[in-house]
Amino acid sequence: MAPTLALVGATGAVGTVMIDIINGRESVPWGEIRLIASARSAGKKIMVRGEERTVVELSPEAFDGVDVAMFDVPDEVSAEWAPVAAARGAVAVDNSGAFRMDDEVPLVVPEVNSGEVGNRPKGIIANPNCTTLSMMAALGALHREFELTELVVASYQAASGAGQGGIDRLHAELEAVAGKGLGSKAGDVREALEAAGLPLADSPFAGTPLALNVVPSAGSYKGDGWYSEELKVRNESRKILGIPGLKVSATCVRVPVVTTHSLAVHATFAREVTVDAAHKVFDAQPSIVLIDDPDNGRFPSPADVVGGDPTYVGRVRQALDFPNTLDFFVCGDNLRKGAALNTYEVAEQVIATL
Amino acid sequence: MAPTLALVGATGAVGTVMIDIINGRESVPWGEIRLIASARSAGKKIMVRGEERTVVELSPEAFDGVDVAMFDVPDEVSAEWAPVAAARGAVAVDNSGAFRMDDEVPLVVPEVNSGEVGNRPKGIIANPNCTTLSMMAALGALHREFELTELVVASYQAASGAGQGGIDRLHAELEAVAGKGLGSKAGDVREALEAAGLPLADSPFAGTPLALNVVPSAGSYKGDGWYSEELKVRNESRKILGIPGLKVSATCVRVPVVTTHSLAVHATFAREVTVDAAHKVFDAQPSIVLIDDPDNGRFPSPADVVGGDPTYVGRVRQALDFPNTLDFFVCGDNLRKGAALNTYEVAEQVIATL
Repeated sequence: MAPTLALVGATGAVGTVMIDIINGRESVPWGEIRLIASARSAGKKIMVRGEERTVVELSPEAFDGVDVAMFDVPDEVSAEWAPVAAARGAVAVDNSGAFRMDDEVPLVVPEVNSGEVGNRPKGIIANPNCTTLSMMAALGALHREFELTELVVASYQAASGAGQGGIDRLHAELEAVAGKGLGSKAGDVREALEAAGLPLADSPFAGTPLALNVVPSAGSYKGDGWYSEELKVRNESRKILGIPGLKVSATCVRVPVVTTHSLAVHATFAREVTVDAAHKVFDAQPSIVLIDDPDNGRFPSPADVVGGDPTYVGRVRQALDFPNTLDFFVCGDNLRKGAALNTYEVAEQVIATL
Repeated sequence: MAPTLALVGATGAVGTVMIDIINGRESVPWGEIRLIASARSAGKKIMVRGEERTVVELSPEAFDGVDVAMFDVPDEVSAEWAPVAAARGAVAVDNSGAFRMDDEVPLVVPEVNSGEVGNRPKGIIANPNCTTLSMMAALGALHREFELTELVVASYQAASGAGQGGIDRLHAELEAVAGKGLGSKAGDVREALEAAGLPLADSPFAGTPLALNVVPSAGSYKGDGWYSEELKVRNESRKILGIPGLKVSATCVRVPVVTTHSLAVHATFAREVTVDAAHKVFDAQPSIVLIDDPDNGRFPSPADVVGGDPTYVGRVRQALDFPNTLDFFVCGDNLRKGAALNTYEVAEQVIATL
């Protein structure tokens, strides 16, 4: 019998991308595809693989008969409902932060550690944070060859990392500031946003303008100066790569880009690494696209790669003063590989283990 | 007799900011202030310290009687004319890249190495690149206390680093993309710019959209994967701080901000360093403003500090896995401290050595 797939959070920002991905990848012939959301969205009709399907309300019974349940919902919803799905016999693939660091829950990026998919004592598999995921295919490939030991990263994170509200806010801010010659006087962007009915207190970006600006914090404050996004990059990279002692420092910064996270990566390895050797590793990885042509000034940038499935890599160079170290720049669509796509790839792999 | 000051490039982007700085700082009672520019701008009238002054054309005679000549012009103009000014008896303070790495030309940031001002065998003093300068007051202060050994930085560089053309381009791009919901489909920003009569071939930003995007290259390509801005950060930091063996890796990225460069800095020291000790060092430096309040989510960002003279520092934290290492975020107005202000501060110090 063809397996049944459930999508919890079918009407959210990531859920919408997920439906696009389900429609575009025919590799698994799902039997039923069940769309689940909160009571507010129940009853909505959405086309999936050529059939109109009605969104049903989240309830224990909604998981009956489900083989794989993908969760694209806030942490607290996953924390409550992924165990319910598992208890009803589904394998829950969760894109929230609720279970990522749980020792009994594997944290999976198929290109890196697909072997972990079958190792799920709680019936739950976690999907990494979008910032970590945006660089993980590239780092995993390099790690296999050269053995990663240290990682210093700075992020250029897109507005959609804060959900549909983040996207809408950035578009509204851009409209409010465009054509006014702002950005050369302290506070003029802030004043223009307030005047346009976009109070900073309502912003998902730390009460700081995102248009014509960058915001040097992402996620929530976790003490000792560190924000949650930065600690996720550290802790999740260690778990996915299986390097408990990996040295990591991350600085996470929001930039006025709609979708696609970028990272400047400074990665040190146990073994010698050259640009040529790294290019070969990237070229051999089907999910990585190398755009690294300094002679013609061609590199990946968010506006040119958004909506794509691969991890895009460029600006690969050998650090001049640090042995066995590469500096490079990586872009990944935070809603696709950074969220929905990776979750779906894990769901596809779960089928092989049932 | 009150000294005579000349400003070469008085009508450019940095020159305009320079006049604002001359008007705002009365510490040196200049006698004559001579405005010099290309033939195209000669004859223009500009108010300086309450007097209307006429821009004169660049010529050897324009430097006669000048004590200090500040150059805010392209490299090739400085390369030709700073020696001419020096030969006519002026001390040239040059903001271009023409002389920065010349062993007989000091590269000066007053807070860090003002002692070098008098050591100018060629009669020329160089002003650092704006990206390096944006973090140098902070790094110099930390270095004095803790001895800097390693530096990994990623930049968030403003459009005005590419001059007035960069500012105009960003404003035009923002106007062309605002209100259209772009940035979620690869190439849609690029298409909108072309359609709006803003061909990417004309852009100062590597033929890549800057609106709703980040551009992972700045300056010109120098081989082995490295761009000029990145090598300047390395070489100039070493020279200014007087650490020839300083280990540096920089990734320079342009962001859609009008003015004020930001940097994510990962700095390793020979001696133990804590957040409290770093805060004390920053607080003691008059040209640094510390905005580091994670409990209220308050940190510096370009839109809130642009136009200011200080270096703004925040997000100071101890690296979790790297000994004696701090991560922090720094913002500096690239046209003021990053260019005109530092040049003018050097000019003020030259007076004391005449």
